[in-house]
Amino acid sequence: MATAGKVIKCRAAVAWEPNKPLVMEEIEVAPPEAHEIRIKIIATGVCHTDLYHMFEGKKKEGFPAVLGHEGAGIVESVGPEVTGFKPGDKVIPLFISQCGECRFCKHPKTNLCEKSWTNERYDIMSDATTRFTCRGQTILQFMGTSTFSEYTVVNEIAVAKVHDSAPLEKVCLLGCGIATGYGAAVNTAKVQPGSTCAVFGLGAVGLAAVMGCKAAGASRIIAVDINKDKFEKAKVFGATEFVNPKDHDKPVSQVLADMTNGGVDFSLECVGNVGVMRSALESCVKGWGISVLVGWTDVEDFSARPIQLIAGRTWKGSLFGGFKSKDGVPKLVNDYMDKKLKLDEFITHTMTLDQVNDAIELMKTGKCIRTVLNVSAP
Amino acid sequence: MATAGKVIKCRAAVAWEPNKPLVMEEIEVAPPEAHEIRIKIIATGVCHTDLYHMFEGKKKEGFPAVLGHEGAGIVESVGPEVTGFKPGDKVIPLFISQCGECRFCKHPKTNLCEKSWTNERYDIMSDATTRFTCRGQTILQFMGTSTFSEYTVVNEIAVAKVHDSAPLEKVCLLGCGIATGYGAAVNTAKVQPGSTCAVFGLGAVGLAAVMGCKAAGASRIIAVDINKDKFEKAKVFGATEFVNPKDHDKPVSQVLADMTNGGVDFSLECVGNVGVMRSALESCVKGWGISVLVGWTDVEDFSARPIQLIAGRTWKGSLFGGFKSKDGVPKLVNDYMDKKLKLDEFITHTMTLDQVNDAIELMKTGKCIRTVLNVSAP
Repeated sequence: MATAGKVIKCRAAVAWEPNKPLVMEEIEVAPPEAHEIRIKIIATGVCHTDLYHMFEGKKKEGFPAVLGHEGAGIVESVGPEVTGFKPGDKVIPLFISQCGECRFCKHPKTNLCEKSWTNERYDIMSDATTRFTCRGQTILQFMGTSTFSEYTVVNEIAVAKVHDSAPLEKVCLLGCGIATGYGAAVNTAKVQPGSTCAVFGLGAVGLAAVMGCKAAGASRIIAVDINKDKFEKAKVFGATEFVNPKDHDKPVSQVLADMTNGGVDFSLECVGNVGVMRSALESCVKGWGISVLVGWTDVEDFSARPIQLIAGRTWKGSLFGGFKSKDGVPKLVNDYMDKKLKLDEFITHTMTLDQVNDAIELMKTGKCIRTVLNVSAP
Repeated sequence: MATAGKVIKCRAAVAWEPNKPLVMEEIEVAPPEAHEIRIKIIATGVCHTDLYHMFEGKKKEGFPAVLGHEGAGIVESVGPEVTGFKPGDKVIPLFISQCGECRFCKHPKTNLCEKSWTNERYDIMSDATTRFTCRGQTILQFMGTSTFSEYTVVNEIAVAKVHDSAPLEKVCLLGCGIATGYGAAVNTAKVQPGSTCAVFGLGAVGLAAVMGCKAAGASRIIAVDINKDKFEKAKVFGATEFVNPKDHDKPVSQVLADMTNGGVDFSLECVGNVGVMRSALESCVKGWGISVLVGWTDVEDFSARPIQLIAGRTWKGSLFGGFKSKDGVPKLVNDYMDKKLKLDEFITHTMTLDQVNDAIELMKTGKCIRTVLNVSAP
């Protein structure tokens, strides 16, 4: 393309500091370096993790940054030594890379590529730098992806090439929330056919977990939320029963135990609340119950009594649903195109990138499932 | 035998109230009722769980009782409808029953027979009664076993028949501690050949966990204790490296991470301390590390940061090493007799039942591994 090798000036939503609205700015996006890909972002979801970083993580580091990690786009240009991608390819940027060579990538049980995680920072690219500047300042790349921008640059180990016909304004959701919830049920909990499951929290991640439980063949899927307005939607994804903890005087774990002769086989915590994590564990049947942490929080400890585990329960967790990212995302896209996976039903609102702050406010109210922002025209 | 069908008067160590020494008393042991077996106890180990119940559990209930749950003996007589046992059989009483019929017994992943646990009391027999009286008072049967007595009565679902030649003063240890630690490694953690393991706490349970890691083929077994005098013994059971947290300024999890390129594959907490539980989890490698709670405490919560699990670690636990009790204990006895399992090396002291309070004091000092009390002449 005409822009290859040149700095691109484009529009992006910049988070200059915590707890302030994002600001639409013109930023400069440098050309991709070796093993890097510059991507024209077409659409992006707005995920609670963006909100968490901005308002709840109580961190001062990581600013100024461009947020957004649930996007999809088209390759604009590739840097030296990139193989397997060319301009025009449809791609999804990945906040967990898959280098294919580290001991984690080679291990069958984990998706935590060492190249994503060794430095334990979310606000940079895999090589610990950034390709963004604005008003003379370096702008960090949140989760290495920064999809709230018309253009971004990502290392090739953190990009999935997807089906040529994939509708990017839908499959962008596979960049985070839907893969996370679905995979937590299918890969991490390994929900068994005929089992009884409980999903706590019916946001996009929780609804995707419900969908995963159904895909795995669960017989009963109990959807738990303090907002009863979510139950209708949960039914669409396969929930068979509904519990609002506010409707009961006794603890929700006791409500579920009474419904299930002692507890569920699998529970998934999709809120990111340590009290709910405890309830989800305690809702599992002793002997073989498995509870999975899916929701994210890092400001508090989760806890329980030791007997909960000693009596045979297992407490697990996963990031990005345990999917090895470059391998997993294209398959999920294909599953969507083969109608084995729902995505459209998650999207309750569509806006433009300029409306990102409205989308964030909407998310805070709990009145949306997923808002997709149209970023660039294809 | 001449005593069959009659009340037996015999000597037992009675715990009249918490935090007081046990008192040697003459007690009355009623004949076994339907499905029950009266056992002449030959030898019993003294386990930390006895101590815990007496001094640390801070409970007022459960007294007066006869403690002891790690014994071995000979069938004196059997009640109506008992099949599979006859007078003279060598047996080990089991604090977890195996009825073989409940949904837990039929499930491959758990040993928590419903008949042991439904009433959630430890101080009675499976049918929620007791066969002991003393000075006109009913005396409870701690963990349904009460091996600190010359005779006890146990339901047939909680008795394992063992090899006719088994030395009861050794195999009694398979009634609790050794099965618990060994099974936690082999059954619950499912330690893999070539893996790196850490065992926290080198009492009998921890040493048995070391033995289990070795039996499962671990390449490195790191023994962790604040008492360095335990390390020599740990070597006997297969430990390859030794860490005393007191020797380091940094957290033990960091010490282990530095030794193992990021953490161990499996860790086993054999202390019963919630701080150590956290350290054991944090000592595991992200992605696939598995930490198992083996030590018992019920007065505090265990806790950790959610990222510990979200980054792919698994937190598990088990009781009695996950062994289905009636099936598992006779096999462990056979393994000992075939020299596949060490038991003699755990026994540092031998005393008589009259010396039970001395044995308890010795355990408090940490200077013994296991004391075996000779209860009756065979």
